[in-house]
Amino acid sequence: MSESLSPDLLRRMHAAWRAANYLSVGQIYLQENPLLDVPLTLAHVKPRLLGHWGTTPGLNLLYVHLNRLIAAHDLNLMLVVGPGHGGPGIVASTYLEGSYTEHYPAIERNRSGLRRLFRQFSWPGGIPSHVAPETPGSIHEGGELGYSLAHAYGAAFDNPDLVVACVIGDGEAETGPLAASWQSNQFLNPAHDGAVLPILHLNGYKIANPSLLARIGRPELFELLHGHGYEPHFVEGDDPALVHQCLAGTLDKALDHIRCIQRDARTPDQPAHPARPRWPMIVLRTPKGWTGPKVVDGLPVEGTWRAHQVPIANVRAPGHLQLLDDWLQSYDPRTLFDADGRLHEELAALAPTGPRRMGSNPHTNGGQLLQALSLPPFRDHAVAVPTPGGVQAEATRVLGTWLRDVVARNLDQRNFRLFGPDETASNRLDAVFEATGKAWMAEVLPTDTHLSADGRVMEVLSEHLCEGWLEGYLLTGRHGLFSCYEAFLPIVGSMVSQHAKWLQVSRQIPWRAPLASLNLLLTSHVWRQDHNGLSHQDPGFIDQLANKRADVVRIYLPPDANCLLCVVDHCLRSRHTINAIVAGKQPEWQWLDMDAAVRHCSAGAGVWDWAGQGDDSDTGDEEPDVVMACAGDVPTLETLAAVLLLRQEVPDLRIRVVNVVDLMVLQAPSQHPHGLPDRDFDDLFTTDRPVVFAFHGYPAMVHKLTYRRRNHGNFHVRGFQESGSTTTPFDMVVRNHLDRYQLALDVVRHVPRLAGQLAQATARYGARVERHQQHIAEHGEDLPEIRDWHWERRT
Amino acid sequence: MSESLSPDLLRRMHAAWRAANYLSVGQIYLQENPLLDVPLTLAHVKPRLLGHWGTTPGLNLLYVHLNRLIAAHDLNLMLVVGPGHGGPGIVASTYLEGSYTEHYPAIERNRSGLRRLFRQFSWPGGIPSHVAPETPGSIHEGGELGYSLAHAYGAAFDNPDLVVACVIGDGEAETGPLAASWQSNQFLNPAHDGAVLPILHLNGYKIANPSLLARIGRPELFELLHGHGYEPHFVEGDDPALVHQCLAGTLDKALDHIRCIQRDARTPDQPAHPARPRWPMIVLRTPKGWTGPKVVDGLPVEGTWRAHQVPIANVRAPGHLQLLDDWLQSYDPRTLFDADGRLHEELAALAPTGPRRMGSNPHTNGGQLLQALSLPPFRDHAVAVPTPGGVQAEATRVLGTWLRDVVARNLDQRNFRLFGPDETASNRLDAVFEATGKAWMAEVLPTDTHLSADGRVMEVLSEHLCEGWLEGYLLTGRHGLFSCYEAFLPIVGSMVSQHAKWLQVSRQIPWRAPLASLNLLLTSHVWRQDHNGLSHQDPGFIDQLANKRADVVRIYLPPDANCLLCVVDHCLRSRHTINAIVAGKQPEWQWLDMDAAVRHCSAGAGVWDWAGQGDDSDTGDEEPDVVMACAGDVPTLETLAAVLLLRQEVPDLRIRVVNVVDLMVLQAPSQHPHGLPDRDFDDLFTTDRPVVFAFHGYPAMVHKLTYRRRNHGNFHVRGFQESGSTTTPFDMVVRNHLDRYQLALDVVRHVPRLAGQLAQATARYGARVERHQQHIAEHGEDLPEIRDWHWERRT
Repeated sequence: MSESLSPDLLRRMHAAWRAANYLSVGQIYLQENPLLDVPLTLAHVKPRLLGHWGTTPGLNLLYVHLNRLIAAHDLNLMLVVGPGHGGPGIVASTYLEGSYTEHYPAIERNRSGLRRLFRQFSWPGGIPSHVAPETPGSIHEGGELGYSLAHAYGAAFDNPDLVVACVIGDGEAETGPLAASWQSNQFLNPAHDGAVLPILHLNGYKIANPSLLARIGRPELFELLHGHGYEPHFVEGDDPALVHQCLAGTLDKALDHIRCIQRDARTPDQPAHPARPRWPMIVLRTPKGWTGPKVVDGLPVEGTWRAHQVPIANVRAPGHLQLLDDWLQSYDPRTLFDADGRLHEELAALAPTGPRRMGSNPHTNGGQLLQALSLPPFRDHAVAVPTPGGVQAEATRVLGTWLRDVVARNLDQRNFRLFGPDETASNRLDAVFEATGKAWMAEVLPTDTHLSADGRVMEVLSEHLCEGWLEGYLLTGRHGLFSCYEAFLPIVGSMVSQHAKWLQVSRQIPWRAPLASLNLLLTSHVWRQDHNGLSHQDPGFIDQLANKRADVVRIYLPPDANCLLCVVDHCLRSRHTINAIVAGKQPEWQWLDMDAAVRHCSAGAGVWDWAGQGDDSDTGDEEPDVVMACAGDVPTLETLAAVLLLRQEVPDLRIRVVNVVDLMVLQAPSQHPHGLPDRDFDDLFTTDRPVVFAFHGYPAMVHKLTYRRRNHGNFHVRGFQESGSTTTPFDMVVRNHLDRYQLALDVVRHVPRLAGQLAQATARYGARVERHQQHIAEHGEDLPEIRDWHWERRT
Repeated sequence: MSESLSPDLLRRMHAAWRAANYLSVGQIYLQENPLLDVPLTLAHVKPRLLGHWGTTPGLNLLYVHLNRLIAAHDLNLMLVVGPGHGGPGIVASTYLEGSYTEHYPAIERNRSGLRRLFRQFSWPGGIPSHVAPETPGSIHEGGELGYSLAHAYGAAFDNPDLVVACVIGDGEAETGPLAASWQSNQFLNPAHDGAVLPILHLNGYKIANPSLLARIGRPELFELLHGHGYEPHFVEGDDPALVHQCLAGTLDKALDHIRCIQRDARTPDQPAHPARPRWPMIVLRTPKGWTGPKVVDGLPVEGTWRAHQVPIANVRAPGHLQLLDDWLQSYDPRTLFDADGRLHEELAALAPTGPRRMGSNPHTNGGQLLQALSLPPFRDHAVAVPTPGGVQAEATRVLGTWLRDVVARNLDQRNFRLFGPDETASNRLDAVFEATGKAWMAEVLPTDTHLSADGRVMEVLSEHLCEGWLEGYLLTGRHGLFSCYEAFLPIVGSMVSQHAKWLQVSRQIPWRAPLASLNLLLTSHVWRQDHNGLSHQDPGFIDQLANKRADVVRIYLPPDANCLLCVVDHCLRSRHTINAIVAGKQPEWQWLDMDAAVRHCSAGAGVWDWAGQGDDSDTGDEEPDVVMACAGDVPTLETLAAVLLLRQEVPDLRIRVVNVVDLMVLQAPSQHPHGLPDRDFDDLFTTDRPVVFAFHGYPAMVHKLTYRRRNHGNFHVRGFQESGSTTTPFDMVVRNHLDRYQLALDVVRHVPRLAGQLAQATARYGARVERHQQHIAEHGEDLPEIRDWHWERRT
């Protein structure tokens, strides 16, 4: 390895590293005496020692070296920190470069600022111990491990000038989502995307164990990473001077390599499908807790898992305060900071300036860069619905034609992508392929269709990657939509939950600008899994989502294609929320023309006067006997079919039909911003009439949302009861007691004046269901009266 | 490649493959005329064509070849089918070997049995389209992709004579959990575990796209798999004769290699830490939908994604019935089956017999092999609690000592393992390391502790692997416990949900014997994430679980160490359920001595007379003014502290304290088998008094569980409100309004006769909280009155 750094530069960079390490240890330990102006005493040490040292010196080392690279090449480079528990390091480094103080002026670049910097860390009301939304330059918390590399790729897509350095801890590298993320290089186009520089930091240990990749030997590790399509460069050692030289030289080489790939790809006359490049990556093997205490209480600490959190955990133990003092003094703070606590100029000058600083890179505060999408008028894609129930359509197929136009309109802006686990066509959104292809950099065969190095559709059979890429894309100021089989979004339930937390916290941070919302289309849903079975039947994702903070969560259940168009248009305009949209892909009856759909979706829920009978909500003269409520396309169908049955059987029954599009209107306004005022809720659902509610998902959700409502005790909810298999559509609703006969029977059961008819209705119900099930068992399909069912207007 | 198969054997094996393919196509298409005795007409074709052909011929090929291997070597081999949507193939193959008919006698091995076999597939009331619990020889549905290889390793652990062949689809290989599963070979000990033979089936396509691993070229794929520590063997082609020879020879070679590894490892005088072997694996590259129609409607089908589901989807289209007929006839069924529809003897004789058949391998019906654990008396580990709140203990640390003894007692049985993502010690279960080590086959350094090739503790930083291994271990008839940070179990929420579905369905299948329960210990919980922040604070896993079928779901919240011991003992004895146990690891006050704990846990919920005041539930003379209910260790602490406050402030208030251990007692008995009868519930919670409920998780859960109860309208629940950070324990409960002052205030608010005190109490509450928060902000820790709080008995 040649000498990349001059002796003076090496000296200064090493000092800058020491400064960051000193500030990291200070944050973990000190509440006073930040510059060790007076001899260290227990009173200077925080009462609770919280944080993670082990990964921190490695992060600090990389920060110093990336700073050199950025400054030397005027690079547009951002950093994703997988080991986010190394928060003290990133806070220290952004403080040293000045970004931190610009974001938080109270944390001045002097002695008193240092004291505040130290005290606030892991301090109640201060800052969290992890890299977090509060941390300048971050788009990634790293608390739940596995998503750093997917976030990094998401950030790099469509940012041709950006380099995203991504530190991956060797613990994180054991997780499934991270293991899948390596293959993201198959989707990165060197011509119009930025570069990702993965840095696998092998510090050898997790919380309590060695890490696997640190123990398989270098040849096997090389093969693994090379087999993933990367060119791995190894930087290994525990002698700082040697590691500095090696790391600097390797970073230079990697950047040269990246620029070479990009130059080649960006020359004119590229082939239609360019070859996939082999991008560089770095394996950095340095000791865990490097420069920390070597031995505590006779046990090795530096270079072992014992350095993971707080290496000297009990400072009150004999000799330990001295150990801490020695450790702090080993960085020689007097040579780093002047008497006012300001970093010496020759060290400060190493960092880049302005927006080139990693703590100030504008891509890491993506809302600031966000450009609204140009959205085509969705009314142009309306299904003509001359009369409710007069025409059929496949909701997602209709949406696909609008999304095609969204893609086309924003091709030049390069700020919109669709994501899906190999299901865009299966989910009937394939009209988008008229406007764009599927991103693909691997080999292409003549029989392939729609594969394109320039595709705006991202397909890979990994929900984790789809979600992680999209999050990274949104966090850096772009837009997207993830369509997925409903049953498989729970695979990324915890990722979405972490994103919700990010949105929740960043909403409170003045300098973080709002992001485009995370839009999730849940289709191929529980009620129509004709080709598959119980494993594909799970509407529980929305339950997970509903637990998150109300200010970031929205759930929509459009009953037909026009409502779906209206909802998705709204979602693509919305900011800083998570929108779950549940919609089927099968041919279903359509209920609302576009004007009615817009009114209905704007209200979130409403009475369908044309569907009820003997009830006119406008005049309000008389309360109905029963409210039949529905949310979701299949429940809406069954509800309307039940209305027809009841119209024949109990002609004088006053039925009100209420359809709910925006599920959160059900919650009390004190719980959710979309919650209907109690008076409006009572106007819809009455205060004392039975409500037979046909719900798309698990019934308990409706009870949970409405338990504060006055009429809640009269809500009778039907929904999915975890009963399914490969069977017919009607058998699915029968198995889960969501079918029209059951709903009609529920009405009879709960309307007091029909009590006398209950026995007869129950018998009739039993006979009907038996007839259906016999037919289904014999013929393998639903009775013609189900398949040919259609809504009949009152005559 | 030398000729492994004689011409006659090759001919017969090829015929056996054709037979399986024929039966697969028949299942997808035919409802009548199973042997094509009469010319094919539309009436013979099912009305709904549902299923997946693409992966099926590859599965059938492997089945025939594994049969040869088993028969030739009298192998104990089971098969895990990752592409579980290839259900028709596995059903066909188990039918041909005779297993299917033994499990389902109505599906006879003759013409009428064939007709039933065909009709039942994807037929309502028949069998699902996927490999499923209904499928003999299966432990894996494969509906949600990603878990096949982890299941295979779980099955192989502690089964030294077993070979687990695991087919991994190239689509599945893109998922995160599968990508992480390759590293399972670092945990497989050739001396006492069985072998896993991964077979990566590259058929090139997913639903609508090429698969990545099929398009990165053989050298890169070889490197990747070799880098994962395997020795990959490639079998590639589309000429059946050549592929048969190559696959047979490769399987022979792989088995030789496995036996060689095992022989070496099982000779005496092994080193303490033997070298990790390089296990063989196979890459099988054959066309998707092989032997199916080559072209339909002018578009290539065989060898493309178009073969994924039903290659000829509309049999009514012109010429398509003929295409189907040609396809079926191409297998020449008359040469395969006799006039009665029975497989020709020379083909039937190829399969192994009895329990050697993959459809009858006893490991795949693990409940049959299940041996109860020998459980040491947990009372020996009881914390002495002379008086409630008189002593502190760390619940999980106490549990650890009992688990140590469980491990020790069952070492010889080799049927119990502990699983955890690098957190066993962090979760304070480290006493187990006195009895065993952590499984580890990679390199060991002198500084390492507790690593052992023979360890019963499985640690890897992947919740997916922990869960997948444990599921595989349980499904093959063993026992285990997975301990995890509470916030990170949602990472595998969807996996647990799929396991719940497996349990639910298999409970209805007479020949499936009950399994040991899936035991999940959720610790390091939301209320005590002192070192981390909001990302580590999520109690939502139990919400996901509660949506599953009541007969398989249990949730326990033991309030102290003795209750935890009692609950875990119960869970390790239970069968065929999923038990979530939430318990903290921090030092907390202990409430119940062991006798009381056993009584309390047996009841599931109960009145704590010693904690209430002016209320004696036994005499029942007088109802209390208020019920203060609690579930979870921290909510219990805050509730009791609130009782002390109220005792001072409202001395004549009649307070009943109810603690809930088994959360499902709250549900109506019609909804859950543990649900308390309404009368018992009303006895505990009254029918009309306010219930101030302090809950560990999201408050809506309690509303959801109790909404059918008479007194539900009076339940006022406090719990986690998604408010958190790195802060003090008391600040956490204050932020979420679960603190003692808030609970006491809630009591004042909801007890009518205290209405006059509300304004004063609210002011007092505000002042108290402010004093706490000031102290916390200033000193970084809770007030001494919180840290030193202890329960005071009534005097």
